[in-house]
Amino acid sequence: MKIHMEQEILQENEDQARMNHEMFGNTLVLNLIGSPGCGKTTILEKTLDALAGEFRIGVIEGDIYTAKDAERIEKKNIPVVQCNTAGGCHLSAGITAKAAEDLPLADLDILFIENVGNLVCPAEFDLGEDAKIAVLSTVEGDDKPAKYPLLFQEAKAVILNKWDLMPYTNFDGDSAEHDISALNGDAPIIRMTAASGEGIERWLEWIRVQAAAKREQDS
Amino acid sequence: MKIHMEQEILQENEDQARMNHEMFGNTLVLNLIGSPGCGKTTILEKTLDALAGEFRIGVIEGDIYTAKDAERIEKKNIPVVQCNTAGGCHLSAGITAKAAEDLPLADLDILFIENVGNLVCPAEFDLGEDAKIAVLSTVEGDDKPAKYPLLFQEAKAVILNKWDLMPYTNFDGDSAEHDISALNGDAPIIRMTAASGEGIERWLEWIRVQAAAKREQDS
Repeated sequence: MKIHMEQEILQENEDQARMNHEMFGNTLVLNLIGSPGCGKTTILEKTLDALAGEFRIGVIEGDIYTAKDAERIEKKNIPVVQCNTAGGCHLSAGITAKAAEDLPLADLDILFIENVGNLVCPAEFDLGEDAKIAVLSTVEGDDKPAKYPLLFQEAKAVILNKWDLMPYTNFDGDSAEHDISALNGDAPIIRMTAASGEGIERWLEWIRVQAAAKREQDS
Repeated sequence: MKIHMEQEILQENEDQARMNHEMFGNTLVLNLIGSPGCGKTTILEKTLDALAGEFRIGVIEGDIYTAKDAERIEKKNIPVVQCNTAGGCHLSAGITAKAAEDLPLADLDILFIENVGNLVCPAEFDLGEDAKIAVLSTVEGDDKPAKYPLLFQEAKAVILNKWDLMPYTNFDGDSAEHDISALNGDAPIIRMTAASGEGIERWLEWIRVQAAAKREQDS
């Protein structure tokens, strides 16, 4: 019975996600997913610093409670909407559609969605995005891709963040990358220290290619 | 409609949790909850090393996939059962009851349950345990108690792990403890570096007090 209900919710979400994708139109939509504290907001801040002059960018911030992340992003002077799920452990396509109503979608080249901090549930719920981005920090351990495979299977790019902290952990970068590649041979794996900006150039380049492909596809 | 279904699932879980609590009898049951990579398994390993001569201990390992954690615990030569939720983001009382059938409950003083790595959903699902233990690592950031309050409200003890990594982060220990105390004035907050064993003594002492109280209560 539980499974049946879950399938209903997932089906309803898929239908709304398809409508969202239409609604997003020419805007490239990237959905950042990872554990609490893996560095999603910091990656977003650095990305906005680097790309704000090049693209028109908007952000949807997903959190269970508080507007702490949206407040950080607001300082970048770009349109941002905070969604609070009030207990919910992931964004849904419905919540995302409502948040997008408050953004000037037609004027945006790129919309970043920062999902609720959770390595599990957000991977199950399409929001109508062009790509899910998996963020894993080295301090979480190299066993996480094998233990939480869905996100890494679904992702179009994987960021291994907090690379600078690796010497203080037992994280084996080669082992993690091996496991990720076994789950998903297509997604680039990007080593990064978002706090210092190290390694971010490859991520920016990946975004530029996606944005160009999106323009191409929609013209 | 969604909320209604969720309430049904939660109610069903509460009923089973009450039955589990009966079934656990004299055994003290501690449910460890925290993000992927916050250090739950390492805390458990160190705790088993310290307490295995003093108490008869069993472990239920919850994971979405793999038996990596159970394999680590098995090396300690204590009874351990691995539960795989196959996609599910938390243990339920039903899954826990089935796992407990494979343990010699009547012969255990303490049963540790390591929940699926997730700061959100496991806090909503009682398993019939005596106490939920919240584990937060410093590398996750000091804003997490305010952003994910439920677990910190429900916990009977809070471990701030990876204390040794704090100098490499912007984690403010006082701010985190202030936010936790505002959510929950009763739970002790235990600073720990499980990997080295630093700070673990206060945690062991807390367990001893709980185990004594449980024996008292059941006799």
